[in-house]
Amino acid sequence: MELVTGVKKPETLELGELLDGSMEGREVKVNGAIHSIRDMGNVGFVILRKREGLLQCVYEEGVSRFDLKELKDADTVEVSGTLTRSDKAPGGVEIRMQDVRILSEPAESMPLPISKWKMNTSLEAKLNYRPISLRNIRERAKFRIQEGIVRGFRDFLYTQGFTEIHTPKIGAKSAEGGANLFRLEYFHRPAILQQSPQFYKQMMVGVFDRVFETAPVFRAEKHNTKRHLNEYTSLDFEMGYIDGFEDVMAMETGFLQYTMNLLEKEYSRELRILGVELPKTEEIPAVRFDEIKRMVSEKYNRKIRTPYDLEPEEEMLIGRYAKEEWGADFVFVTHYPSKKRPFYAMDDPEDPTYTLSFDLLFRGLEITTGGQRIHDYRSLLEKMEKRGMTDEGMEQYLSAFKHGMPPHGGLGIGMERLTMQLLGEDNVRETTLFPRDLSRLEP
Amino acid sequence: MELVTGVKKPETLELGELLDGSMEGREVKVNGAIHSIRDMGNVGFVILRKREGLLQCVYEEGVSRFDLKELKDADTVEVSGTLTRSDKAPGGVEIRMQDVRILSEPAESMPLPISKWKMNTSLEAKLNYRPISLRNIRERAKFRIQEGIVRGFRDFLYTQGFTEIHTPKIGAKSAEGGANLFRLEYFHRPAILQQSPQFYKQMMVGVFDRVFETAPVFRAEKHNTKRHLNEYTSLDFEMGYIDGFEDVMAMETGFLQYTMNLLEKEYSRELRILGVELPKTEEIPAVRFDEIKRMVSEKYNRKIRTPYDLEPEEEMLIGRYAKEEWGADFVFVTHYPSKKRPFYAMDDPEDPTYTLSFDLLFRGLEITTGGQRIHDYRSLLEKMEKRGMTDEGMEQYLSAFKHGMPPHGGLGIGMERLTMQLLGEDNVRETTLFPRDLSRLEP
Repeated sequence: MELVTGVKKPETLELGELLDGSMEGREVKVNGAIHSIRDMGNVGFVILRKREGLLQCVYEEGVSRFDLKELKDADTVEVSGTLTRSDKAPGGVEIRMQDVRILSEPAESMPLPISKWKMNTSLEAKLNYRPISLRNIRERAKFRIQEGIVRGFRDFLYTQGFTEIHTPKIGAKSAEGGANLFRLEYFHRPAILQQSPQFYKQMMVGVFDRVFETAPVFRAEKHNTKRHLNEYTSLDFEMGYIDGFEDVMAMETGFLQYTMNLLEKEYSRELRILGVELPKTEEIPAVRFDEIKRMVSEKYNRKIRTPYDLEPEEEMLIGRYAKEEWGADFVFVTHYPSKKRPFYAMDDPEDPTYTLSFDLLFRGLEITTGGQRIHDYRSLLEKMEKRGMTDEGMEQYLSAFKHGMPPHGGLGIGMERLTMQLLGEDNVRETTLFPRDLSRLEP
Repeated sequence: MELVTGVKKPETLELGELLDGSMEGREVKVNGAIHSIRDMGNVGFVILRKREGLLQCVYEEGVSRFDLKELKDADTVEVSGTLTRSDKAPGGVEIRMQDVRILSEPAESMPLPISKWKMNTSLEAKLNYRPISLRNIRERAKFRIQEGIVRGFRDFLYTQGFTEIHTPKIGAKSAEGGANLFRLEYFHRPAILQQSPQFYKQMMVGVFDRVFETAPVFRAEKHNTKRHLNEYTSLDFEMGYIDGFEDVMAMETGFLQYTMNLLEKEYSRELRILGVELPKTEEIPAVRFDEIKRMVSEKYNRKIRTPYDLEPEEEMLIGRYAKEEWGADFVFVTHYPSKKRPFYAMDDPEDPTYTLSFDLLFRGLEITTGGQRIHDYRSLLEKMEKRGMTDEGMEQYLSAFKHGMPPHGGLGIGMERLTMQLLGEDNVRETTLFPRDLSRLEP
């Protein structure tokens, strides 16, 4: 029997420790993957890829106790040497190598030029070689920023008294119902994959008042566009005791403010690598659906063709309008027509053809749908009846309302879309680790 | 156009603010659900359920400007009154009610006695009425502690340089392969739901060195036991540049230490409600599979029937042995037989019939499987060949190794099981928000 007592500080150092100045002139050990090698005869440069960035290691004939020819791209190694200040090296330090220990070797050379700053590779090729293309410094930085977004979402909501929940993805019935569901057999019973945690998070408002979930959702939509995925990560929250859907918009604004601040502080390296400028979130304009439709139609001289919905081009023009008129990257579009919202959306008592709901557009693309929900049992039944829905399979959802629910509302944010817009990418697959679309089920 | 500027402090107060002493004697407003009412004629007690706990509100005829009869269980209300010190009230304060505003009303009375301390309701009934039974103070406390576990997992791993990833749950091929897979049709192609993020997290070690994911996994296992679910949340991590699987055990021990500390600091209320005593995690014994099998067989006079695996009863006895001999709640069982581990497990070079792997048992139940993985491309191909596997559908996984991977290892932790053992429950459904098993697909 031996005793495990927890994490010990390893002998090898990480980039942060090498850069903080305390180890200069000292013998150090580091590990990493060989990102590239420049052999100039008596001298050579070996660039190590570490999780925090790149590190330059210098080979000098006579000083280094090995032959540079022994090393090749994509070896993983442990290097020993002297940490030295060098203005030309990335980060201002380099290691003058003495010894190297090869930890592992590739069997074949790289199919993509991952050590280039920009790979100039098609999206298709990047996705086909996903585990390799992500080793590029710029590619992986996108997903560090994505981590920051999700982290910001959770950490902000913890400060606001939300509880994290984990709800099932296999179910008998879905919140939005009908089309666009993946179906499967569950021990000889028909089942579906959830399109959203909507029903569950609402039920849990009756338990914890405020809940959130960050989890996959599944949509069997048959369109292959630059902004759709068939599986994506949804950042969902739902909050009770609201005075109106304005409270939900305020909470989302708070999340964005918190998260941009977190990214600035903790992910500045990745923002710099990608040249990202963070959007302003101090004030986000909110404007009615029918009004912004009219304003955009007038300003850009564009006919309104779909009175109940926003066309993608209209969303883009709203983004342009918000930027030109208000200097805003984000804009809340409120009071969507009732017929385009699900049954659980609360209609506006002043005009029930509209709902107390909103979308958030970020640089001309919808990244959030949210709003106030119906909390009164009888009102919910009435709305369902009006839409010709039965309560089959919804007994548990409805029971939460039957036994009392506070006024509440919430929203869902598409993680990959928010990342895409923040980074200025033009295809949501660029900011999805392993996308699932009509044609892509692998890797 | 209006401007949304973020979260404003609401007029209503939360429990923490009421209990911190600063508001005593002041007029306050609070909201909540009516958990129970005790009407004693001229005086009455209305217990409000708020997200942080219960709050006693006192009705006094003549002082309160409404009739107590207007209120009933499960109403949600906003109460105004004077915050007063009271040694008999939970938390030491109560509100002497002046006004009440009813926010919502139930349509029917409660099907379960949720306001009782212990409901004395069968698990079956609790699951059938899930959105209601969770309103019980003890029931919901379990899931607050579950939140703390997941939060501890993530927050600890952030401090250790891990990156969070989100990998697809629909795929063409699974890591463990074969049986126990849920199958579905994905746009006219056969697809499966992932049993584990194993392949993905390994591929991502080549990108970020250290990664984690907290997400659902799906197992179509046909046994209905107290410890199995067909969908559960898996806490997974994978780390590169390890010296051996001992580094993985050390990291898990670090996570447990961090998390128990977090629970003690931030979830003490819930620990108290459930009477939970946190286990010791300073030192966790690690013992070889074949040795502990023999030790348990000798001490408890039990014949070894399955030399390559642990029977549930054997796991229990190992737990008992660890407690009796070493005073330990946790025990790592190392070096599992190779034939019971997946192909990617690294065999022990000293005896390849065993692997460099481990399980973690907590109070006699397996909550983790982990170990070192094969990182060398040719060794991986050889092992697959030995097992009669083809590389069909695994090209991308294998390409990560073909192009170089550091030595690495990792583990998966069953979130619901860890919660169950921590809370001393005897059925994993007790610590699952909405369980999925052979017979349960709803709610």
